[in-house]
Parts: sequence; structure tokens; C-alpha cells
Amino acid sequence: MEQINASIGFDKNLWKQDIQGSIAHAEMLAKQKIISEADKNSIHQGLREIEREIQSGQFEFSRALEDIHMNIEARLAERIGEAGKRLHTARSRNDQVATDFRLWIRQNIDELIPMINHLMLTLASRALEYAETAMPGFTHLQSAQPVTFGHHLLAYTEMLNRDRGRLIDARRRLNENPLGAAALAGTSFPIDRQLTSKLLGFDRPMANSLDAVSDRDFALEYLSALSIMSIHLSRMAEEIVIWCSSPFSFIQLSDAYTTGSSIMPQKRNPDAAELVRAKVGRISGALTGLLTVMKGLPLAYVKDMQEDKEQVFAATETIILCLAACSGMIADLKANQDNMAYWAGSGFSTATDLADWLVKELELPFRTAHHVTGKIVSYAETHNLALENVPLQKMQEIEPLINNDIYSVLGVQSSLASRTSEGGTAPKNVRKSAKIWIDKLKDIS
Amino acid sequence: MEQINASIGFDKNLWKQDIQGSIAHAEMLAKQKIISEADKNSIHQGLREIEREIQSGQFEFSRALEDIHMNIEARLAERIGEAGKRLHTARSRNDQVATDFRLWIRQNIDELIPMINHLMLTLASRALEYAETAMPGFTHLQSAQPVTFGHHLLAYTEMLNRDRGRLIDARRRLNENPLGAAALAGTSFPIDRQLTSKLLGFDRPMANSLDAVSDRDFALEYLSALSIMSIHLSRMAEEIVIWCSSPFSFIQLSDAYTTGSSIMPQKRNPDAAELVRAKVGRISGALTGLLTVMKGLPLAYVKDMQEDKEQVFAATETIILCLAACSGMIADLKANQDNMAYWAGSGFSTATDLADWLVKELELPFRTAHHVTGKIVSYAETHNLALENVPLQKMQEIEPLINNDIYSVLGVQSSLASRTSEGGTAPKNVRKSAKIWIDKLKDIS
Amino acid sequence: MEQINASIGFDKNLWKQDIQGSIAHAEMLAKQKIISEADKNSIHQGLREIEREIQSGQFEFSRALEDIHMNIEARLAERIGEAGKRLHTARSRNDQVATDFRLWIRQNIDELIPMINHLMLTLASRALEYAETAMPGFTHLQSAQPVTFGHHLLAYTEMLNRDRGRLIDARRRLNENPLGAAALAGTSFPIDRQLTSKLLGFDRPMANSLDAVSDRDFALEYLSALSIMSIHLSRMAEEIVIWCSSPFSFIQLSDAYTTGSSIMPQKRNPDAAELVRAKVGRISGALTGLLTVMKGLPLAYVKDMQEDKEQVFAATETIILCLAACSGMIADLKANQDNMAYWAGSGFSTATDLADWLVKELELPFRTAHHVTGKIVSYAETHNLALENVPLQKMQEIEPLINNDIYSVLGVQSSLASRTSEGGTAPKNVRKSAKIWIDKLKDIS
Amino acid sequence: MEQINASIGFDKNLWKQDIQGSIAHAEMLAKQKIISEADKNSIHQGLREIEREIQSGQFEFSRALEDIHMNIEARLAERIGEAGKRLHTARSRNDQVATDFRLWIRQNIDELIPMINHLMLTLASRALEYAETAMPGFTHLQSAQPVTFGHHLLAYTEMLNRDRGRLIDARRRLNENPLGAAALAGTSFPIDRQLTSKLLGFDRPMANSLDAVSDRDFALEYLSALSIMSIHLSRMAEEIVIWCSSPFSFIQLSDAYTTGSSIMPQKRNPDAAELVRAKVGRISGALTGLLTVMKGLPLAYVKDMQEDKEQVFAATETIILCLAACSGMIADLKANQDNMAYWAGSGFSTATDLADWLVKELELPFRTAHHVTGKIVSYAETHNLALENVPLQKMQEIEPLINNDIYSVLGVQSSLASRTSEGGTAPKNVRKSAKIWIDKLKDIS
Repeated sequence: MEQINASIGFDKNLWKQDIQGSIAHAEMLAKQKIISEADKNSIHQGLREIEREIQSGQFEFSRALEDIHMNIEARLAERIGEAGKRLHTARSRNDQVATDFRLWIRQNIDELIPMINHLMLTLASRALEYAETAMPGFTHLQSAQPVTFGHHLLAYTEMLNRDRGRLIDARRRLNENPLGAAALAGTSFPIDRQLTSKLLGFDRPMANSLDAVSDRDFALEYLSALSIMSIHLSRMAEEIVIWCSSPFSFIQLSDAYTTGSSIMPQKRNPDAAELVRAKVGRISGALTGLLTVMKGLPLAYVKDMQEDKEQVFAATETIILCLAACSGMIADLKANQDNMAYWAGSGFSTATDLADWLVKELELPFRTAHHVTGKIVSYAETHNLALENVPLQKMQEIEPLINNDIYSVLGVQSSLASRTSEGGTAPKNVRKSAKIWIDKLKDIS
Repeated sequence: MEQINASIGFDKNLWKQDIQGSIAHAEMLAKQKIISEADKNSIHQGLREIEREIQSGQFEFSRALEDIHMNIEARLAERIGEAGKRLHTARSRNDQVATDFRLWIRQNIDELIPMINHLMLTLASRALEYAETAMPGFTHLQSAQPVTFGHHLLAYTEMLNRDRGRLIDARRRLNENPLGAAALAGTSFPIDRQLTSKLLGFDRPMANSLDAVSDRDFALEYLSALSIMSIHLSRMAEEIVIWCSSPFSFIQLSDAYTTGSSIMPQKRNPDAAELVRAKVGRISGALTGLLTVMKGLPLAYVKDMQEDKEQVFAATETIILCLAACSGMIADLKANQDNMAYWAGSGFSTATDLADWLVKELELPFRTAHHVTGKIVSYAETHNLALENVPLQKMQEIEPLINNDIYSVLGVQSSLASRTSEGGTAPKNVRKSAKIWIDKLKDIS
Repeated sequence: MEQINASIGFDKNLWKQDIQGSIAHAEMLAKQKIISEADKNSIHQGLREIEREIQSGQFEFSRALEDIHMNIEARLAERIGEAGKRLHTARSRNDQVATDFRLWIRQNIDELIPMINHLMLTLASRALEYAETAMPGFTHLQSAQPVTFGHHLLAYTEMLNRDRGRLIDARRRLNENPLGAAALAGTSFPIDRQLTSKLLGFDRPMANSLDAVSDRDFALEYLSALSIMSIHLSRMAEEIVIWCSSPFSFIQLSDAYTTGSSIMPQKRNPDAAELVRAKVGRISGALTGLLTVMKGLPLAYVKDMQEDKEQVFAATETIILCLAACSGMIADLKANQDNMAYWAGSGFSTATDLADWLVKELELPFRTAHHVTGKIVSYAETHNLALENVPLQKMQEIEPLINNDIYSVLGVQSSLASRTSEGGTAPKNVRKSAKIWIDKLKDIS
Repeated sequence: MEQINASIGFDKNLWKQDIQGSIAHAEMLAKQKIISEADKNSIHQGLREIEREIQSGQFEFSRALEDIHMNIEARLAERIGEAGKRLHTARSRNDQVATDFRLWIRQNIDELIPMINHLMLTLASRALEYAETAMPGFTHLQSAQPVTFGHHLLAYTEMLNRDRGRLIDARRRLNENPLGAAALAGTSFPIDRQLTSKLLGFDRPMANSLDAVSDRDFALEYLSALSIMSIHLSRMAEEIVIWCSSPFSFIQLSDAYTTGSSIMPQKRNPDAAELVRAKVGRISGALTGLLTVMKGLPLAYVKDMQEDKEQVFAATETIILCLAACSGMIADLKANQDNMAYWAGSGFSTATDLADWLVKELELPFRTAHHVTGKIVSYAETHNLALENVPLQKMQEIEPLINNDIYSVLGVQSSLASRTSEGGTAPKNVRKSAKIWIDKLKDIS
């Protein structure tokens, strides 16, 4: 029973938040004359000493005391006697654990944000460097139109920007104070929840005591945000794995992010990327797991909720590893620009440019221009020619009005340079976007 | 192949958004002189006629044309000829579908919000009605302290308020315009994405064309928000099921939300509540499903993303049913106040009040007060007495300083009335909170 | 990189299986003259010593050596020199880890089966004890027909029997030998995979080397089986929580499986049951997680698969706790037979018996009998009478042919005794089934 | 309420099974003299007519009648009068729906098996054709050792064989008869469940009536089996997508399984493969969804279980599409053998052969041979040479005992031919395995 029931094995992660919460609670109790100043001082000093004990590894956690809250409170009573027994006045483990857990997630969001910023900045910096580098833009992993590598990297900056936004929204929404909800009904002591809110950096007290101790939607929202971000990272990782594969050879990673083998020292297995790709499973598994736990639970506190912590801790640890690995790989990668350029020009990738020329210069309707282009591409394919090598005469056999100007839009570089629509892949767009991001991020990552 | 490939079976749901997007696109093309005013007018008129055809059920959807976009475009060409073939200039199915899908989700959020408001208002109205009604506050489904039924109902208002906030945040984040990203690289046509953004009510164009056509994080975020909301509803539903069970008999539902049987006409099976409890599986299954789909997909568009729609459509349809059923049940339920009151007073539910009295009046430390209370409760249990019936003398044998005043805190009503801390269950708090919510919500639900 | 890459933190769990596999491999290599007898003996002795080092806690695991396989092999070379470097001949980490992991799961299945048997036996034993104890049979948590508590407990024995069957099938299917697949292509050494299969207790070698190192479906199947079992346990746990709730009070659990509080020492919170109910989230989350990991992975070995182990280890540890907790609770619980009997008789729970009597004795069609019964129940409800107290005359007003015999089927005990159809709830059925299970299980749990 | 409650919209899928079950039930009732022969005949005839009505599309399903069972029963009463009202004797919707659903899944398994066999046979046939075709064997999507394409295809045959086994086991386990469990408690009618079991092809009656109506583990097991199979198919699909990408160009698919565009008619987008890869999300989402539904449900029947059907129907329909698409693509694909061979020989892919030669011929310990090989590979890489072009003298500078024989193992074909260990990639192994599978499968697919 103790084995299934005790949570100290994992909830000791909350020790800092537990002490932080208790200090604020004692402060408020004294301010409201519920305990004496002397008791408060004694409690604060005792908690600070326990903080040092834990930090230095001297604190002995006891499974018999079940959880971090009882471990700390019991030690406090041991150290300071009677005063320690007054700390829990007008409080319950139910509001205490909800408070600690919100503080823990909030702090971890605050640590994740700069890591995301750092990855965004790294992407933007590399994007600037590769703003003119042509690569094939794929649909269905088939070459469709040329894009620039910088543009491709910036796509991930945009995704991460939304991921960051989700965490910021989650932080704002969870930043309300459950402390003072007591077991579930509030209390008859004249507590001041505005004060504890202020001391703990919460925006306000939670408005309903039953809700305060019963809900874990903040943990679900946090896990959702991490899951979506991990999906983005898994996509980046898949691309790195493919780009590193020999037939592609779009990029190289150094030994810092690959493993070789004693027998094939030339091999650079992109292990880090594969692990990032895989780790979405841990994070979205945690989300699914906690959704399952919370389904159909009656109010107020039920022990089932104890299952929230391990999932959140594991997901957090995992996303930290993934962000660090991605930042490292993006900073580390070296583009094989020749290879990229070769494939960017293959597969009649400027067919759209040809069609657009037909629309613009000959005023063909778009769908008609498509069909004309299709015929030219077919001819080129049959005769094993690149588009720019199809003779003008052959093109004119298909569409008589085509003239020599057509060749000006069939090269990869001209295609890239022409995509100047807002958000398009033209190098000048990419440089501009990259610089904007670098300016925004350089001081906060 | 056609069977697995065609999406018209479900993406015809997007027809309104597809026409809306095309109208804006044609408007912009004309404004930018990419097509003529005459063509634009012809396109607009053609699309309005198609709109009517679909609304009236006359439109014939063709699986051979694969999807809603080609179905409408083909019909347009049929109706208006050449001009119809110019509509797709500077656009691709990739940015088109991303636009339509964002518009669809946005519109559904706009329809869900008033439904959530309505449920919140219903809860707040019933809460006001039951602001003084005592019921047992459970932890572990064991009676812990008395609460008021109104307070319990308001806990769900708070949860739904956060659910609404998540949808509003998701709406804000998704409300960017992918149109103009074209296939993936932007376009060389002189399009004006600010204009289409304005026409379609988007806050701004998406900043990166690859990102615009490749990501579906907005759908994941929407499904996450629905999943978390459905968890809240499943909890409400579980409580309704338990409250309707005979040993509890806390509430009654009318025939409108229950089913009986010909053989046991007195039976009121809470089918609607059970279905709400279950339907979280559909919604969170959709989230898990789409997370799985998106994992590890390389940029830009890949066909895998076609799997986004059915999950989002099913989850939306499901949550609408659930919200309607919950609003209905909450409006319909009738509390058996005597039963609730009986159980609110059972199980020594005012033990905390006794302990708090010891702290306040005798200045016992909280933990000491707990132990004294524990002894009194044990005595009461052994002698089969309610707390308020334990003789003063017996209490004094345990703690000599206890005096007659103690009895003033041992009743359920006095307990309830005393919980006046911010967010506590006291009837006056509940009335105040309920009124605030009713004021906020009455005009917007 | 080392931090994300190294797996020794968790795969040291495989140490026994790794040594077991290496011993068999060396045995085979020597038998096939690929290494000498002397080298084999040296390897065996070295591995046995390492086994003792690990068991006694003296082995120093090194993260720089990444995983359990390299840790052991490096230590072996340290201890026995050259011979140690020959162990890995005709083997690769890829087939080695697949072998170790299959052995680990197989062994854990072999340890889970007796635990399941024990829980089944406990259920059957309590079922025999409570074979005549009436309780309400619920549909929709509404009283529908009386059943016996023993019958209810045996329902779980049946579920667990299928859970056991799933594990046995999974064991049979996974019990094939990947060793000898080498990195992915097999080997040119004259190895004997039949021999290693025999030595390791595998039924046969896996037939395709690529499949052998690439698939983890055995882990998915194992997690599926655990997930389904955990669903069954969550249902049992939910019932225990409800049965312990005061309004029900169907059962009592002792202090061994509940927690109280210092302030309410009478309280018996069913924490263990709540945790079992919740822990399905960990297990099905692990399944979802690993499904996500494996989705879309190209052959052969990719590093993503390293994510298989923690999910399997965590799910295994969790289900062991759950099975132990359930066995304990079922053995411990005490039925409040009076309460159960009271509710078994409430709610016109013998209405079906009345209808069946009308069909059997008066030869009314079933649907007609239902309507007649419905009218009688309505009368009884309106007049607040139990069915057996409705006067014959009133019944005859509804259906003239009813006679006095009807009363013989309206009592709970007669209802129970009449349900003698195969699998029905009659006490004699329950006793018989319980005894059959006890006989089957008593020697194997 | 009707909208959330009615299930006829999807459970009409069960119509065949519902009629099948009713025919067996009536047969048994007559045999046991519970109804007359005449009534039975009338019921049988009525049901056969309803069957024809449904098949011909004339049957009018009514949502007011809620579900398929009531729709059919009501129509029967309409057609045959009184006798129709006797059909439901000794039966309940609870055991009826459990029976119908088991029959439905059983029948679908029986239809899936030949589809799986067909895919396995297709793989084996292509494997025989490509038994000697070299391709790179990847780890981490990096070339590791040469394998044969036939061997690679057969890896999937093995996976599918286990998938088939899981379905067969699931079928065996679910093939028990719930009919006769009635509402939940069994019945007092003298029914013969052995007879209905025999008539419906069930192996035996379910042993416990509560279990029979309450559990859906058979649906969970079925969805688990489909999920694992869909993972296998998603891996095959991912490989097809990568193999079709230009830099790889390992295979070509015809127009039957790809889509092009009017503008790039040469393009062959592997849409079918991408959809197969994605559709695992639908199937595993269904599993997660139903696990969530079933979590923590008290016995016996609760309405939540109605959510089982749509998930199972959707997953079944999806897997059927996926199997058909995979069979089609595998039959259709054409290997670009030159490309495969080129990449099979690149990346020093015979380094392992070199190392194994050192072990076999020079008796170097394996780990030492690895280091020697590593040095030779490094030399080759630095000097941009294939391994077979490194001069003997240079090799001897690294390991003096190397002689001219070494070159015999450095070619791709000799490497392939040497991997004759059981399950290895040697062409002769592949031919043998392929033929065995073809023999086993040709008559049953």
C-alpha cells in the first residue's frame, strides 16, 4: 500500500515550490494575526534551513511520510517545535499541492521560453546565412518548386513562435492562486488571498475553492502545448534524417550530433535527430495519459490526480532535451549547397514559372496555361531535356505566341528571385524576415 | 485509388469557406489588375449561383473531381467559361485548403462560444437558486466538509471560463491568412495579401509561405481545447450519473434527459449524461489521431494532412452535442435538498470546524487541534453520536479548556456560513459570484 | 548529446537478459568452432563475475559507454582481455538488444501470470463466500435486477482470464529468436541459430533478419494487453470507490487499503482504489506513446526504437502495483450485506420477474407482458408500495388473469434463485463457477 | 436528446448480425417450447422479408426507434403481429447488442484475413522476382550493409503474418456467446445457450452474464490488432514515399497509385502511400478513444458503451482501404535496379565483410578487426576510393597479414551471397523463403 500510495519518489521535485508557498502562507498568517510574528519568523528561518539541507543533499526523504509536503512539515516541527505545527493553519494539502504544482509549471515555462527563443534565433541566423541557397521545395517529397534553404529554416521559426505563444497563454491562464481554498470549501479564518497571490506572483486568487483543488486543466494545457511543439520538432528531425541520408546529402552534421561506429568511422548516424523525432511519443503519451486519468473524475480532490506529476515531469525533461538537441543540430549543420542546387533544378521545377509567364505575358487563363505547360514538360521529359533546353520552335509548336523571353524565367535563381510576394521565398524576403527575427530575439535568448 | 484518395466525401463541409475564399481572391486579383473587373464580376456571380445550388441541394458532387475545391472550380468553368479558368491564378490548392480550413474552424469557434456562455449562464442561474443548499463536499467520494450546491455548480462555470479562454486564444492564433502562399513558395504575381486578409477577416498574412501550407498546429490546438473542455464535461456527467443513482438521489432529471423502459416506467436512466461522459473518447481520440498523423512529416504539403479534416469535423459535431446536452441537463435537474442535507451532515463533516475553533479560541497549534479533534470524533463514532451530540463533559475529558461555545460551530449551516474566505463556499459568496457571472453572461449567450 | 543519446539510465534493467544472451551466444560460437572452447569458458566465467558485481551493487555503470551492452562488454574485456573481444563475433547491438528486450518481456509475462492467477483466485474465493449475498444489479448505475455479489466478483475473474490469455498469446508470438540477424542482413559466419534458440528458450529463430532487428510489435502487443487489463482493473477500482462512498456503503475496506486523517480518524479514503483507477493512464499512455514512436519508421534499425524501453518498463512496474493492490483490496473487503440487500430490493427490481411470470403462466407475448408490468409498477410507484405489496385486486384490474401465484416471484431471493440459466446469477450457479475457478487456480497462483 | 441518444445512424451497420441473432434465438425458443413452432416460423419468415427490405434499400430506418434492434423488432411486429412480440422473450437489448457486435467483428476479421494473405502473397511474389536485386540496407537511413530487395519485402510478410495471428487470436477469444445473459442476470426461462452458440458459430456461451453484457475488451483487442498492423503499413508507406523521391529513385509507381498535376504531368505524387502512412492516426485514435471510454465504467451495461461502434466501424473501413492500397502498390511498383545497386555499393557498405574476413582468416578478435577495418575505411574515405580499390600495400601498412584474398569479399554481390545464415539476406535464402510463403498463401488469398 505504501508503495502504491507514496508520492515522495517523484513529488520531491516540488520542494522549492513547497517552501516558497509555505513562506508566503506564513507571512500572510502573521499579517492577519492568525499566527504571531515570532512564530512566523521561526517558520521562515526553519524553512530556509530545510532549503539548505535539501540543496546540499542532506535532507532525508521518508516514504512513510508519503509526500513532499509532509516531509517538509514534519522536519519543520522537528527543528522549530510548536511554531511548526501552526504553519498548516487555514490550509490543506489539497490547496497546497495545487499551488506547488502551478508554481512548478510556471517556473518551467519561464525556463523553456528562452530555450525556444534560442532555437528560433539559431534558425533565423542560419536562415540569413542561407538566404540565397537554392533547395528543392517538396510536396509529397517530390520536387515541386525551388525554394531557399533560409526560407525553409524560417518556416520553423514561425512554428516555434506559435509554440511559444501557446506556452505564454497557458502561463497566463494558470497563474491564479489556489492557496486559501483549503480542503475544498475555503476556511473561516480571516485569510488574505490577495496577499499570498502577490507574494507568489499570482495574478489573482482562484475564484472558487472547489475548482481550485479539483482541476488540473492547467497541466493538460501545458502538455498540449508541449505535444504540439514536439510535433514541430519531430518534423524538423525527420527532415534532418532525410537530408543526412546519402542519396539526399543536403546537409552534414558534425560528430557532436552523430554517432559513428568503430568499423565505419565515416558514418554519421543522426541519432540525436532520430531521438527528437521519437520523443514526441513520450510527450503526447503523457498528454493522452493525463486526459485518461482526468476523464470522469467527480469533484473535489480524488487521489487519481496524484498521477498528474510524473507525466508533467517526464514531458518537461524530454522537451528540454529536444530543444537543446535541435538548437545544437541547427547551429551545427553545414549545407551541401551544390547538392541542394542540383536537386532544386531537377524535375522541371520551374514549370510553374513557365505557366505564370504564359498568364502574365500571353494572358492565357491560368488553367489553359497549365495545360500548355504540361505539354512542354511532357516533351522535355520524353526528350530528356531540362526546361531551359527545350528549343523555342518546339515550344511554339505547342503555343505559337511563346517568344524568346520565356527563357528568362526558367532558371532556378530567377524563379527564386521572382517570388517576392509577401511571405514568398525570394532571397530578399528571407533576408528581411531573418533580420527581423534576429533583432527581436537576440537579447532574449 | 479513387476511394482512398478522394476527400469530397467529407471536405464538402468546407463549401462555404471555399466560396468565401474564392470571392476574396478574385476581388484582390482584379484590384491588382491580374484579372479584369469583368472576369471578377463573372466569377463572383458564378460563385453565388453555386452557393445557391449547394444550399438547395442541387449541386452534384463528383468523386472523380476529388475534393470540394475542384468540384466548385469545375462547376464554375462550366457556368462562366474562360473567366472561371482565371480564378486559380496566383493560388494553389495548398494555400486554398489551408485558408478554407482555418476559416471553418474560426467559424465553429464563433458558434461554440455562445454555447459555452449559455452553459455557464445556466450553471450560474442554478447556482443562485441553490446558493444555500447544503450538500456534502467530497474528497475521495467520502464526505469531507459541507459545501453548497450552488458553489459546486459554479466550479464548473470557472472551468468553462478557462475552456472558453483556450478557444479564444486558439482563434486569435489561427487567424492569419495562408492565402498567397501558393503551392509553397509564394508567387511572382503582384498579389496583395493584406487585402485578402482584410476581406476574409484575418489579422494578417502568414509570414512564411512554407509554414502556411505545411502546418496544422491550429487544428491540434483546437482539438486540445475541445479535449480539455470535454474532460470537464465528462466530470460533470459522472457526477450527474452518481447523483441520480438511488443510494445518492441528490438530483432528479426529467424524462427529457433520461430514458425509461416499458417494463420499469419509473426508471430514469441518465443516458444523456453517460453519453457526455463517454464522448470525451471521440474528441481526445481525434486529438491523438491527428498528433500521430502530423508526427515526423517533412515540409511542405504532404497528402497525409488530408486526414486532418474528419477528426476536426467529428470532434466539433461531438462537442456541440455535449454542450447542448449539458445545458439541458443543468437547466432540467431538480435537487433533492433533504437528501443532500442529510448526507452533508453525516460523517462528522464539521470536524474541521471543531479543529478551527480550537485554534481560534484556545490558540492550540493546528496540528495539536487536529489530534484533539480526532479523539473527539473517535469517541463520537464509537458511541454512534453526531458531533453536536457529544456531551461537553466528554469533550473536556479530552481537552479541558473546551467550553459550551463549541456547539455553535458544529452545525452544517453554521459551517457553511463561516466559509467566507475569498472563493469559499459561504452562501453569501455564492450569491455574489453567481450574480457576477449572470451579469457578464446574460447578454452574450 | 550524451544526455539525449545514452540509454544506460534505463536499459541497465536488461542486464540479466544481456548476460543470458551473451552466454548462449558464446556457447554457440564455440560449438560452431568460431571461437575456442578456452575463450568460451573465459567469457562465461567473466560474465558470471559481472553478474555478481551487478547483483551486489559493485558494478559501475558508465554513461560514456552509452548502454548496458557496451558497459558489460567493456567490463568483460577489462576482466578477461582478448577473449572478451571475441564475444561480439557474428552479432551486432541490433540483434542483441532485440534479443534482450524479448527475453525481458517474456520473463515479466511469466511473473505477471501468477499475479493474475492470484487475483482471479482471490475473486473466486470471495465469490464463493458471497454466493448468496444479494446486491442490486445496475444498468446506468440504476437498480435493474437483483444479482449476487459473488456473481459480480466472478465477472472480473472472467475478464482477467481473457487478460491472461492475451498475455499468453503475446508471449507465444514474441518467443522467437532475433539473435543471429546481426546488424540487419545476417552474417557469413557459420552460426547455429537453432542452438541459441534452444539455449534461450525461444521456439525458433526469426525468419527474416531485417524484420528481427526492426520491429517492436511485440512490445506494442504487450502494452495493448496491459492496457486492456488495466481498463478492467480501473472498472473494479471505480466500483470499489463507489461502494465505499457513504450513501452506498456496500463494502468496507480496512486501514490497510485506505488512508484516514488525523482530524477525521473515522474516514477511510479508498486511495489505493483511486490510484488503480488512475494508473490506466500511465499504461495506455505508454501504448499511445510507443505507437506514435513506431509510426512511419523506415527499416531497419533506427535510433527512435530506443524509446521503446522506458514505456514498457513503466507500464510493467505500474501493472504490478495495480494487480497487487487489487488482490489486496478484494481479499480485504467486507460486504455490508444488509445495505446491499436493502438496495437490491428497492426500485421495483423484480419487475422483470413479474413480466416473465406473465409470459410463462399467462402466455402473454413478451412485449405485452412488459406493458402490463409497466402499469403495475406505475401503480406501485404512485402508491409508494413495493411490488410484493400491491394488492392482487389492483393487479387484476390491470390484467384479470393474474392470480395469487404471482407473489412467489416478487421477492429478491426467489428472483436470484430463479436465474439458473447458464451463466446466470443464481447462487447455485455462482457456487459452481467459483469452485471450478478455485480448483483451476489454487495450485498456480 | 434524441440526437445524442439515437444510435441508428451508425448501428444499422449491424442489421445482418441482428437478424442472424434473432433467427437463432427464435429457433432456440421454439426448441425449448418457450414459443410455438408456428410463431417461430412466422418470425423466421418475417425476418427474412425484413432482410430483403434492407438489402433492397426499401427499409425505412426511424430515429425515434433509436437503434437497429428496435427498428427491426418494430417492423417485425408490424408485419407478423403477436408472434413478433414474443421474439424478445428471455432476451434483452444488452445481450442482443453484445451478440450482434461480436458477430460483426468476427465477420470482418474473416474478411480481413484473405486481404492480409493477399498482401503477403503479393510481397512474397515480388520478393521472388527481386531475390537477387541489391539495395542498401539502412540503419539510421544511412547505408550499412547491402541487402536484397526481396529480403526487404519479405520482412513485411513476416510482420503481416504476426498481424494475422493477432486477429486470429482475437477472433478465437471473442467467439463466445453473450446471448442468454439477458439484461445482466441471466433468466428464469429454460433457455439453451449451447444451442444458440452452435447456431451462431460461437465456441461456447459466455460463463458470466454480468461480464457478457458489460465488457468490450474484444473490441479493444481488435482495435489493438488493427493499430499494430496499421503501424506496419505506415512503415511500408514511409519507405515507398522515400523510395519514390527523386534523390532515391529506388522505385516507380504507375499512375494507378500516384497523382500528377496538369502542370507537371511527369510528377508522380505517391498520394496513396502518404494516405496509408497517415491513416494509422484514425485507427490508433479509435483505440485510444475506446480505451478512454471504457476507463472506470462500473458494471453492468452503461450507455457509454454505445460509443464502441463508430470507432470500430471507422477503423475497419480504414484498414480495408489501407490493405487494398498496399497490395496494389506492391504489385505495381517497379524497382530501379541500377539506382538501388549504385547506392548498395556506396558508403563502404562491405566494411563488415572486410572485418569478418579478418576474424575468419587472420583470427583477429572481433573488436580488433573492427579497429583495423576502421583504419582502412578512413584511408579509403580520405583518398576517395571504394574499398575494393584500396591498394593491398596500403591495407598491409595497417595490418601486415592481409593478403590478396581480401578482395573477394569486398563486392556487393559476394557480400550478399555470403549472408547465408538462417534468416540472412543471401539470394538463395530469399528465394527459399519466398517460395515457402507463396506455397502457403496461394490458395487462401
